[in-house]
Amino acid sequence: LSLTILPLEGLPEVGPGADLAELVTRSRRLEDGDVVVLAQKVVSKAEARVVRLDELEPSERAREVAGDGGDARRVEAILRESVRIVRTRGALVIAETRHGFVCASAGVDASNAPQRDVLVLLPLDPDASARALRSRLRELTGRTVAVIVSDSFGRPWRQGTTDVAIGVAGLAPLLDLRGTRDAAGYELRSTMVAVADELAGAAELVMGKTRGIPGAVIRGYAPGGDGSARELVMPAERDLFR
Amino acid sequence: LSLTILPLEGLPEVGPGADLAELVTRSRRLEDGDVVVLAQKVVSKAEARVVRLDELEPSERAREVAGDGGDARRVEAILRESVRIVRTRGALVIAETRHGFVCASAGVDASNAPQRDVLVLLPLDPDASARALRSRLRELTGRTVAVIVSDSFGRPWRQGTTDVAIGVAGLAPLLDLRGTRDAAGYELRSTMVAVADELAGAAELVMGKTRGIPGAVIRGYAPGGDGSARELVMPAERDLFR
Repeated sequence: LSLTILPLEGLPEVGPGADLAELVTRSRRLEDGDVVVLAQKVVSKAEARVVRLDELEPSERAREVAGDGGDARRVEAILRESVRIVRTRGALVIAETRHGFVCASAGVDASNAPQRDVLVLLPLDPDASARALRSRLRELTGRTVAVIVSDSFGRPWRQGTTDVAIGVAGLAPLLDLRGTRDAAGYELRSTMVAVADELAGAAELVMGKTRGIPGAVIRGYAPGGDGSARELVMPAERDLFR
Repeated sequence: LSLTILPLEGLPEVGPGADLAELVTRSRRLEDGDVVVLAQKVVSKAEARVVRLDELEPSERAREVAGDGGDARRVEAILRESVRIVRTRGALVIAETRHGFVCASAGVDASNAPQRDVLVLLPLDPDASARALRSRLRELTGRTVAVIVSDSFGRPWRQGTTDVAIGVAGLAPLLDLRGTRDAAGYELRSTMVAVADELAGAAELVMGKTRGIPGAVIRGYAPGGDGSARELVMPAERDLFR
């Protein structure tokens, strides 16, 4: 068992309605069992999940959160994408998205946007995005692959972002080791491994935000099962950090 | 740029004083620029960072935290490794270690221990462990590699563990993109990428807690710089979740 991580190079700038799967197959010949990882940004652009700053009328709450230094229109976009504000400090807003993800700005981002004064939002249903890409890739190539839609999330207590899975198809995002034992017969402490997040992070290593490489193919992992990135969201009753 | 992740197979059970670097070179021929990732468990065992449960005399505080259901000796070991208890729920203790890492049980773990009723502790100085391994690998092979000591950490809000770096040598753990711009000239939002954590997570994908593979070699990353895993700890004044 060894893995190879191959960047998806040479993809053009993507606009609304782009056939991303077709662009992937032009960049890289796929094999059965490949895991295709695509950055949220490129998926959102293909799905026209963007909003122009000048279309946003800030609510009172948005003005309040933005304060003097922030852009209330940007905060308005964040609030519309959020079901709960988790923390704020200055212009930094940590929010829970409609999908249950807790991340900076509810995933709303201006970098790598199609033009200035445009914000990119997370896909409405990133699992559905992954499923559609997977199905189109099968149609185009005959290959059965898994698809991950990834985004860069910060973490409490640790510096720096790591890429995680916000949508999956054709892959069980958690490897459940409950009940399995080590060589000495001891039950394992860490019983669930977030393999979809580790795959997303691995793909990020060859992508690079400044190099314009919006995805990667991971070969050799042999994904099993199926599931939803929502399984990666800690259920509220088990969450010590709500 | 593509990466290959190669498991370190065939390593024997490791005891105190084991020459881990020598075992790595027997498993895999190294090349300049390789990143060698070793699980904390095997590093701690080589460093005799273990404690027998029957050597632990629980303090009153340990009995209090353990409650009726928990093992107060195990909690005693956790308290000795901790500078701060962050959260507890039942037998689950989230603590800050002497290194500044926030994780379950302050890294104290019974699985994959050398024998029953023995707990494995984190290395006293995992960066020093990584540096010593790196230097010994150079001595044995003439190759200049980077070394990461990894462990499986849980995360707030997300299910499942991912492997992260708790010690590094020969590698800048954070890729600092501050001031860099995307193709449209926008400054990047996610300005620091925790590449050492992404490398640790990528290695975990070929390791597997139940398969007895305690490490991996990542080829093609071309690590640059140097640094300490302490850089991955969020400074208290910037931490919204202390």
